[in-house]
Amino acid sequence: MNEKTFIKLGNNKPPVIITEDPIKDFKRCWQLTIGTHKPTPVFFLVDKTPYGIFQNILNDMFEKLPVKLVGIRKINGGENSKQWQVAGEIIEEWIKYPITKDTVIVCFGGGTITDLGGFMASVFKRGLRTVYIPTTLMAMTDASIGGKNAVNFNFAKNQIGTIYFPKFTFISPLWLSSLPENEIKSGYSEIMKHALLDKSAFVKTILSVQDAKIPPSTSLLTKSIRTKLRIITSDPFENNKRMWLNFGHSFGHAYEGFFLSAQKPLSHGHAVAIGIVEALYFSSILYNFPRQLLIEVLNWFKQMFDFDELPEWKTLQPYILQDKKNLSSGIRLILLKSPGNPLIDQIEETRICELHNEFINKLRQNNF
Amino acid sequence: MNEKTFIKLGNNKPPVIITEDPIKDFKRCWQLTIGTHKPTPVFFLVDKTPYGIFQNILNDMFEKLPVKLVGIRKINGGENSKQWQVAGEIIEEWIKYPITKDTVIVCFGGGTITDLGGFMASVFKRGLRTVYIPTTLMAMTDASIGGKNAVNFNFAKNQIGTIYFPKFTFISPLWLSSLPENEIKSGYSEIMKHALLDKSAFVKTILSVQDAKIPPSTSLLTKSIRTKLRIITSDPFENNKRMWLNFGHSFGHAYEGFFLSAQKPLSHGHAVAIGIVEALYFSSILYNFPRQLLIEVLNWFKQMFDFDELPEWKTLQPYILQDKKNLSSGIRLILLKSPGNPLIDQIEETRICELHNEFINKLRQNNF
Repeated sequence: MNEKTFIKLGNNKPPVIITEDPIKDFKRCWQLTIGTHKPTPVFFLVDKTPYGIFQNILNDMFEKLPVKLVGIRKINGGENSKQWQVAGEIIEEWIKYPITKDTVIVCFGGGTITDLGGFMASVFKRGLRTVYIPTTLMAMTDASIGGKNAVNFNFAKNQIGTIYFPKFTFISPLWLSSLPENEIKSGYSEIMKHALLDKSAFVKTILSVQDAKIPPSTSLLTKSIRTKLRIITSDPFENNKRMWLNFGHSFGHAYEGFFLSAQKPLSHGHAVAIGIVEALYFSSILYNFPRQLLIEVLNWFKQMFDFDELPEWKTLQPYILQDKKNLSSGIRLILLKSPGNPLIDQIEETRICELHNEFINKLRQNNF
Repeated sequence: MNEKTFIKLGNNKPPVIITEDPIKDFKRCWQLTIGTHKPTPVFFLVDKTPYGIFQNILNDMFEKLPVKLVGIRKINGGENSKQWQVAGEIIEEWIKYPITKDTVIVCFGGGTITDLGGFMASVFKRGLRTVYIPTTLMAMTDASIGGKNAVNFNFAKNQIGTIYFPKFTFISPLWLSSLPENEIKSGYSEIMKHALLDKSAFVKTILSVQDAKIPPSTSLLTKSIRTKLRIITSDPFENNKRMWLNFGHSFGHAYEGFFLSAQKPLSHGHAVAIGIVEALYFSSILYNFPRQLLIEVLNWFKQMFDFDELPEWKTLQPYILQDKKNLSSGIRLILLKSPGNPLIDQIEETRICELHNEFINKLRQNNF
């Protein structure tokens, strides 16, 4: 692979690099964004599992760079690590080191790591530089792109966070080789979301993926990231269009919160898959989204995730009321008139209650 | 006072309003920045003491506005409330209410309140709107201006924070009438800092203030705020010039941290006064800052604050190493060649140690 073959997206604000040869390309990206004229202190925040497997490759990537490793914190991936409380513990360590203002926080892992590390870096001494090296499909296509970070507050998901961009996001399908099947499936939920926000052709491409347990091609991954970046670029601080990316997530986060507190945690991708199908159901009733496509998307997701035993509105309601997009005047949902035609709708709770209960009944009867 | 007599600084990014008639002018400012076309949920974060005194005036300010008070949290002013831990407790309450994305957090109190409230609002659901109504001289001239907020992490002062602007800052000398003397004196430290960053004439004006226990005139207050805004506008995200505003604060924060952990807390203004004089001493040795003016500033401050029993370098050093401006390569100080001519200097620790110990000896011997 020569230098020109890595893919650079995002118009430098900040760049997203996609490469199949991370050792070769990392140095160049570092030079372009962090600079190499003086030694830079770096701190590694890593997910134990991929770090255990790929430690040598990561070391090779940094080997010829003028950096000084000031510390490393290994954490378990997953929602339990992405907590306000954990952020406080790590910040306490950072104060003791001490971590200085010129330190670069390198986040190596899934969305948990980039979300937690991005948040801490954004508030520590009012902002340290970060570099994201996402290792899960979910983080590559979603969490590490666009500058949003978040931590949970007990069971309230993503209630705390900032919009704060890394210096660059460095993506390589290499890390996906060791990813468990359920993580790959999770990532496909976000890819489907991007496809539905893009256009019918992209949705069809995803629907034609027969085996959602193997990683997507680099070109599919690139297409998904490009869709997200296009939306973000048009509205970086989420005044309007960027909210589209919340498609499937109002209900998705509510399911995630509900099942977590019921001690039957769902993967984020699983929760979002249900949330997407529910949003498509609302869209079909309220905005004539094609019923046939809703069924195709549902059936495609059903190969990966079960849709059983969803809670009734009364049970789910407290979890959806925490959604960040809500205003005091009602619940805001992102719906679709058709693929690529989203809108932001504010719906009264009584109507939501009706439609939600209809939706879970139809799921039970498998009759849309 | 007619509508045109309130002073509006800051070029709308965001506006800083200075008025002697808050009841009359508040509504207009709210209309211009928050809008009044629909009811707005508001949450009051207030310092118990001024709220106890001025509650009725505050209520009158909001009386004719279309707002809905969703909650009020009274806290004790002072550094102990401005903690990561306290932020977590209040955020937990906000999640329970729940506080929605369209809520405006109204911060009424000193720098503790605007710093804590500004920080929490900046990270809660990735950003709620805030309005600052500073009630102390310190907060009016410094803390509430420029968008920086911060909380302490145990004894490490201001280690966590963001740069996040309120919708507007609403200043009225009215609140100063009940302010304790030591709070007025504290505020004068920041005003002196601004004067030293502005020019000799402004320094002379401050030195001519005979009784620093009575509030400054509205015009002096306005001049001080204007100096700070001028520097911030030239560098809102602190890439260079904005660091000038840290003048006196590297040592100031270190003294504050040291005396706090020694259970002999200093006011911020007291700590900054010592920090300013120490920075002027360093400036006189390293950059020929006029020795005579250093002595005048010291003597002026001595009317208000004692300069006794300052710790030696060995004792102070751990506290200054936490300064946010430091890089891994050394300690950064803001020094002055002359009033209005600051520079950012990076000094080796051995040299700092020498100069610091010289400084406290000269103070002891009262011989500069």
